[in-house]
Amino acid sequence: MAIIVHGAGFSTCTQRTLTTLAELNVNDYKLEFVDMMKGVHKSPEFLKKQPFGQIPVLEDGDIQIFESRAIIRYLAEKFEGQGTPLLGKTVKDKALVSQWLEVESQNYNPPTAQIVYQRVFSSMFGSSCNEDVVTEQVAKLEKVLDVYEAHLSNNKYLAGDFFSLADLSHLPYTYLLVNAAGKSDLITSRPHVSAWWNDISSRPTFQKVLGMNEFNKKE
Amino acid sequence: MAIIVHGAGFSTCTQRTLTTLAELNVNDYKLEFVDMMKGVHKSPEFLKKQPFGQIPVLEDGDIQIFESRAIIRYLAEKFEGQGTPLLGKTVKDKALVSQWLEVESQNYNPPTAQIVYQRVFSSMFGSSCNEDVVTEQVAKLEKVLDVYEAHLSNNKYLAGDFFSLADLSHLPYTYLLVNAAGKSDLITSRPHVSAWWNDISSRPTFQKVLGMNEFNKKE
Repeated sequence: MAIIVHGAGFSTCTQRTLTTLAELNVNDYKLEFVDMMKGVHKSPEFLKKQPFGQIPVLEDGDIQIFESRAIIRYLAEKFEGQGTPLLGKTVKDKALVSQWLEVESQNYNPPTAQIVYQRVFSSMFGSSCNEDVVTEQVAKLEKVLDVYEAHLSNNKYLAGDFFSLADLSHLPYTYLLVNAAGKSDLITSRPHVSAWWNDISSRPTFQKVLGMNEFNKKE
Repeated sequence: MAIIVHGAGFSTCTQRTLTTLAELNVNDYKLEFVDMMKGVHKSPEFLKKQPFGQIPVLEDGDIQIFESRAIIRYLAEKFEGQGTPLLGKTVKDKALVSQWLEVESQNYNPPTAQIVYQRVFSSMFGSSCNEDVVTEQVAKLEKVLDVYEAHLSNNKYLAGDFFSLADLSHLPYTYLLVNAAGKSDLITSRPHVSAWWNDISSRPTFQKVLGMNEFNKKE
């Protein structure tokens, strides 16, 4: 039975999952659209799959799993040996992939998601952009990116010389930060971060996933 | 060579690491105290180990890793088969452990850490408690705990019928929420969450780790 991804092409966390599937050369899956504009993610039926009312949810036979970073780890472990090796090969590499995945989750994503929320999503929810929040979160993200700049001056990718889940996990929100939130300067002002971003964001897998996104057409 | 944990007994993220070591029956390690009051975590020497200036950092031979949730996964994988099995045995169980670890990281910890910061830590940093933030974050945490209550009415532990890293990862901050932040009612008002909390917080491993904490003596 094929894998089912309950999600939406424009959702960052769904994109994280779809890019992982593409990197692993898994084509036998179905994207089941969850219409958040109609509140389907808060329906009693969907809440049985995901009690917090968030997307995506992955179904694979009798396995049902939510939280995108848990899903991508599950997929990378299940399909290890197929497509791009995303978890690292040695014990040390695996530890570094886990570490930088956590840096994305704990240090990079919170300010980035808040900037993107204010600049891109707030108007969709009938709110307006709070520029004070943007300023505060940009200051936090600048510090994180300074660490990335120094690290990437000695490493082609976050966990070393290989593309991994840690890099991949940065793609969806950074794409919005650069292309929709008006904050591309945070990336382009740092040469090593900029080279890393150009490299990972131009991967055919991510470009393919962007093409599945109704709202987010590339210029 | 023994494992070295650079951290502090009172630090929640260090406690997450130490409890994992205790559950895995790893006693051959050294806790190297990082004196945050003296700013050691921001010293050039420490920033070489952890460029964000946070604790803990784990050293194990030539492997050096930071971010507590990455560290505990590394340890649970390295010592699989020794002590408590913390990752799950089947592919399905492992997926559920990853899922609930991410729920802790993404849904549970952000509001909990903010409540604890306001009520417990803000005064240490020369600030005062902002009760508006507490009220806002308590409302968020209530919704998360309602999901936990329903889930734990059908499951003894988060990932099923076995104690795992997912439960363990909740220990340090929930201990402060209950015992220092004056918010024990969030737990005790939910019978299944309360039973789960009494169970996991009374584990000898966590009690031992609390005993390593200079500030946080249990009544």
